[in-house]
Amino acid sequence: MVVIMQIGATEEQIRRVEEAIEQAGFRSFMNPGVERRVIAVLGVVDAEKALLADHFASMPGVERVTLISEPYKLPSRHSHPEDTIVRVGNAEIGGRTLAIIAGPCSVESREQMLETAHAVKAAGANLLRGGAYKPRTSPYAFQGLGPKGLDILAEAKQATGLPIVTEVVDPHDIEIVAEKADLLQIGARNMQNFRLLQQVGETGLPVLLKRGAGCRVRELLTAAEYIMLEGNTNVILCERGITTFEDSTRYTTDVNAIPVLKHLSHLPVLVDPSHSTGYWRHVRPVAMAGIAAGADGVMVEVHPKPEEALSDGPQSLRPEKFKVLMEDLARVASAVNRKMP
Amino acid sequence: MVVIMQIGATEEQIRRVEEAIEQAGFRSFMNPGVERRVIAVLGVVDAEKALLADHFASMPGVERVTLISEPYKLPSRHSHPEDTIVRVGNAEIGGRTLAIIAGPCSVESREQMLETAHAVKAAGANLLRGGAYKPRTSPYAFQGLGPKGLDILAEAKQATGLPIVTEVVDPHDIEIVAEKADLLQIGARNMQNFRLLQQVGETGLPVLLKRGAGCRVRELLTAAEYIMLEGNTNVILCERGITTFEDSTRYTTDVNAIPVLKHLSHLPVLVDPSHSTGYWRHVRPVAMAGIAAGADGVMVEVHPKPEEALSDGPQSLRPEKFKVLMEDLARVASAVNRKMP
Amino acid sequence: MVVIMQIGATEEQIRRVEEAIEQAGFRSFMNPGVERRVIAVLGVVDAEKALLADHFASMPGVERVTLISEPYKLPSRHSHPEDTIVRVGNAEIGGRTLAIIAGPCSVESREQMLETAHAVKAAGANLLRGGAYKPRTSPYAFQGLGPKGLDILAEAKQATGLPIVTEVVDPHDIEIVAEKADLLQIGARNMQNFRLLQQVGETGLPVLLKRGAGCRVRELLTAAEYIMLEGNTNVILCERGITTFEDSTRYTTDVNAIPVLKHLSHLPVLVDPSHSTGYWRHVRPVAMAGIAAGADGVMVEVHPKPEEALSDGPQSLRPEKFKVLMEDLARVASAVNRKMP
Amino acid sequence: MVVIMQIGATEEQIRRVEEAIEQAGFRSFMNPGVERRVIAVLGVVDAEKALLADHFASMPGVERVTLISEPYKLPSRHSHPEDTIVRVGNAEIGGRTLAIIAGPCSVESREQMLETAHAVKAAGANLLRGGAYKPRTSPYAFQGLGPKGLDILAEAKQATGLPIVTEVVDPHDIEIVAEKADLLQIGARNMQNFRLLQQVGETGLPVLLKRGAGCRVRELLTAAEYIMLEGNTNVILCERGITTFEDSTRYTTDVNAIPVLKHLSHLPVLVDPSHSTGYWRHVRPVAMAGIAAGADGVMVEVHPKPEEALSDGPQSLRPEKFKVLMEDLARVASAVNRKMP
Repeated sequence: MVVIMQIGATEEQIRRVEEAIEQAGFRSFMNPGVERRVIAVLGVVDAEKALLADHFASMPGVERVTLISEPYKLPSRHSHPEDTIVRVGNAEIGGRTLAIIAGPCSVESREQMLETAHAVKAAGANLLRGGAYKPRTSPYAFQGLGPKGLDILAEAKQATGLPIVTEVVDPHDIEIVAEKADLLQIGARNMQNFRLLQQVGETGLPVLLKRGAGCRVRELLTAAEYIMLEGNTNVILCERGITTFEDSTRYTTDVNAIPVLKHLSHLPVLVDPSHSTGYWRHVRPVAMAGIAAGADGVMVEVHPKPEEALSDGPQSLRPEKFKVLMEDLARVASAVNRKMP
Repeated sequence: MVVIMQIGATEEQIRRVEEAIEQAGFRSFMNPGVERRVIAVLGVVDAEKALLADHFASMPGVERVTLISEPYKLPSRHSHPEDTIVRVGNAEIGGRTLAIIAGPCSVESREQMLETAHAVKAAGANLLRGGAYKPRTSPYAFQGLGPKGLDILAEAKQATGLPIVTEVVDPHDIEIVAEKADLLQIGARNMQNFRLLQQVGETGLPVLLKRGAGCRVRELLTAAEYIMLEGNTNVILCERGITTFEDSTRYTTDVNAIPVLKHLSHLPVLVDPSHSTGYWRHVRPVAMAGIAAGADGVMVEVHPKPEEALSDGPQSLRPEKFKVLMEDLARVASAVNRKMP
Repeated sequence: MVVIMQIGATEEQIRRVEEAIEQAGFRSFMNPGVERRVIAVLGVVDAEKALLADHFASMPGVERVTLISEPYKLPSRHSHPEDTIVRVGNAEIGGRTLAIIAGPCSVESREQMLETAHAVKAAGANLLRGGAYKPRTSPYAFQGLGPKGLDILAEAKQATGLPIVTEVVDPHDIEIVAEKADLLQIGARNMQNFRLLQQVGETGLPVLLKRGAGCRVRELLTAAEYIMLEGNTNVILCERGITTFEDSTRYTTDVNAIPVLKHLSHLPVLVDPSHSTGYWRHVRPVAMAGIAAGADGVMVEVHPKPEEALSDGPQSLRPEKFKVLMEDLARVASAVNRKMP
Repeated sequence: MVVIMQIGATEEQIRRVEEAIEQAGFRSFMNPGVERRVIAVLGVVDAEKALLADHFASMPGVERVTLISEPYKLPSRHSHPEDTIVRVGNAEIGGRTLAIIAGPCSVESREQMLETAHAVKAAGANLLRGGAYKPRTSPYAFQGLGPKGLDILAEAKQATGLPIVTEVVDPHDIEIVAEKADLLQIGARNMQNFRLLQQVGETGLPVLLKRGAGCRVRELLTAAEYIMLEGNTNVILCERGITTFEDSTRYTTDVNAIPVLKHLSHLPVLVDPSHSTGYWRHVRPVAMAGIAAGADGVMVEVHPKPEEALSDGPQSLRPEKFKVLMEDLARVASAVNRKMP
């Protein structure tokens, strides 16, 4: 941490900052700059102590405070240099074999779900997604079948053997969802619903944490810290697009975030091209880009009849297009020394 | 709603879209364009029916669908042309008199809260803020005093007569918070926590809904719809900064959103310059800008010793600076024909 | 400047960085951190030497380099603590009296220009704008009348006494524009056309530098440095909206940038609510917000018949609405202790 | 084009809009909506006529105007369904063989340039880049060797046979640059320097048009239209990162833009991972992602000693890392049925 004083800060103000640094258990070092004083904070400034930056920044005469360390600890590759592999049913996410999570946005009916489950399994997916509780921008939109949807997912799991990925939107529902799900999804809109993060952390179940559309990589990793602090290290990160000024797609896939996350963190990283583009037409190339950039897998929406889907129809692939995607992904996987499941 | 076909869409594809439009209860009108076919959807396409856009957009041969109407109904000025005035204790928010909500980010202690409460009351504030439950980006940060914080707020209310504004972060806490609070705050990170929105809607208590940092004006109004659909029309909107590429301030205050919201909606609109700038130095000019742009009030963080604050110190005003702000705001208020409380 | 080494950087890598720092004429100081090494660069690191950051950042073992100083010098308030006042004709921009620049987006005809000039003068504007050379997003759009437009502007100046503000888009045109203009405008799309900046700098004429829609405050000030390095200190900055994800207005007015620029720089700052909102309806409240936030004036598009304008009709005010705006601005100006011209 | 009236628009206002539509040579069709009137504009509304949208939007009673067609014509795939292949020396850009443009950011010396040229040729690049005229954010930064740099590039071309790609920043320099360059680059900061676009269009030489960091895909294509309108169809587009709130990389690579551009346009599309990430560490994965997403090639900065580079050191690859990148790209190319040069 470095405390940058205003030009013209008084000796008294400088002295007080130095005292505050010492009181916090650090040593201070005055950088002998000419124009403005810069005070280095010596000692270990970890995620916990990083919060002191705000205190120093609020002191009279201080221009700003610059952090050197990252504001998170457990997801950091420094605290765990090897890649973490998260086991979900038979699937291992984060190793050489890619994770392919596929299925409809929402569970709409037994028929729709089973048809899709068989189709994605046949095409080679190793995890099945489907939403029973849906956080929808509009209150008039289909909000999910709830417990009945969970039962249908359980049936689809039994029929295909695929582990189930489904979203939880309220701490109150965790128990019932955790009974049927193999991987609990935290949606983008809840990435900073910290109470929910803590409580899914407590379950010990694997968690798929999707990046909020307006959140930085740093904030995604700090959200993961909330889950991991509960003793749950089975966290998988997912890039699903950020809001930018570009409006030719629904979100902007932050493909840079994939190597950045792999560099900063040991956690597995997936990409969700269905949400990050918003159009089925662009799902295939962006899924391939994600794997080429080093993602540990993809999460793709598949629906037998997208035009009848109760949510996210425009970005869902028909099963036959998903099959083509899987063939294309297999070639890219092999190019980057990864295996399809 | 207008359905834009791809160039080269077949007659069969066009026929199916027309059928789908008629089946949904609308009439279709084929725009006789030369290059590409455009099918107008005739009839009332309200917030509820707007969701059909996704269905049509998923059909083969369709390029995209353009909505004409807004995706929300109850917050719209068309459904309620007059300004809504929300009563909170003795305060009326949305009328000629401005709302001045002031207080510390977090309730930290009885002394801190009472000192601040008396100071902001003396300076002319008419509502008191203070967080008992804090959604913090880092799990190492102070998470609030919880129920004890609520008790302190209640004491501050009794001592000053100021109604209390405090945040609720989990449906599970609503009951206990609602006992002490006069105005329930939904923080920016929970703007799309739809379950929470519905449940604060059910309380019937006034709700202060802060805009998510990555959310559009349209999404803020659709979030308000979630609350209002529960029969609760006492919703106040708050612009508190959006994430952009500019990094000289913490967020970018979207001052345009103030007249836009007043044009689109009948709900009161506040501005929170403490969060939207992140630096105490810029709070005063941006608060004044908000009122000049037509906001119905401001929400400002005040702390007796910002350098000892457990949260948001750098953006908190000392009481004496808040007093100066109030004098400046009074002059701007009068310039735009508003009154201080 | 602070050089942050990677965790695991070798002693050899550290030694080389220290050598590079010494060779560049600085002293190095090794911060005794435990986890990662941080090397402070001691000595004056000014705008010129800040470029060395890139060199150090490219060295093996370096994680990143953090700058302490700003990357510009002449526009900085540290190099010139008092506000700069730029004289343009009879107008003084940057003092207590506000600058009101008004007129059509483009000069379209003698009649249109003269009618507008008389109207804005009558309403109290003290500078007249009008584009003779127009940088238009579409090549099919009206590109301006060129030299003929300049002649019309000169006539409008003679008729009203108002100094002329007009844009220059190509170094090749500077001479001819400079003959007729009192204030040379660099448009947002050319903010980083550095050759153009240097050449308008050489003219010594006052320059109005508009912020690029995708550019940070820091980049705007560094662009100003290009002009000022040619010995021309008559630079006026203008916030005209940035591109963000919000699409209810054309751009997002970065109202925070106004106090930020006034804090960082001594140069006058204007706001252009016509471009920053894109809709005439929002021009009035955002102009008022700009003045309340501390801007030294506004730049507003006025057109006698917006629906017949050859450019920017939707954001242009009719003369009668401009008159109302001026009355409203007068009240806000007085509230912030400024005067109308 | 669809004109959406305000709720409460008068019959007189509607009549005037209909008249304006007819006067512009279209037919109008009143959509029989209940709540608000929507007037369809029937007839061919091409890029040229799209500008009328502004006129209609400025008329009293109009809420807004929605365009159906794209605001550009010549770069559109509708006007030219097959992929365009641009020939530059022996290289063909846009066909099955990828374009690999490599070299230093700036030409710094004869030795540096020749060493790099031989290295990138040996590794398999088929075009050589190097800047002689550099648009730099800071005026204190190295601005390029100018004509001397061009001579060195010519020598490197002669020594290696690689065609030369170099930037032009001012219409005044086009002639001298065009003598030595095989492909004229328009940098991101000049994407909307329309005068420059027109004049490089007139040369008939192939043009590499880089996307402005704050510009939409639509604006990139409209900038291409400026060049193509001069009769020059040899335009290559380049995604080089956009400005967003994410700050862990220098820009955000908009990987979605690659399939979007290939869908909307027939022009070749490259990706520049050096600029779009800003860190050499992320260049390799993002280059691979770009090719996997369908880009027709990459543009990569290579420097023999990045830590001594006069510009862009942190994002430059050493020749040995470039060689590794080429091997990796070859595998991805083959996975997407493309060939290395």
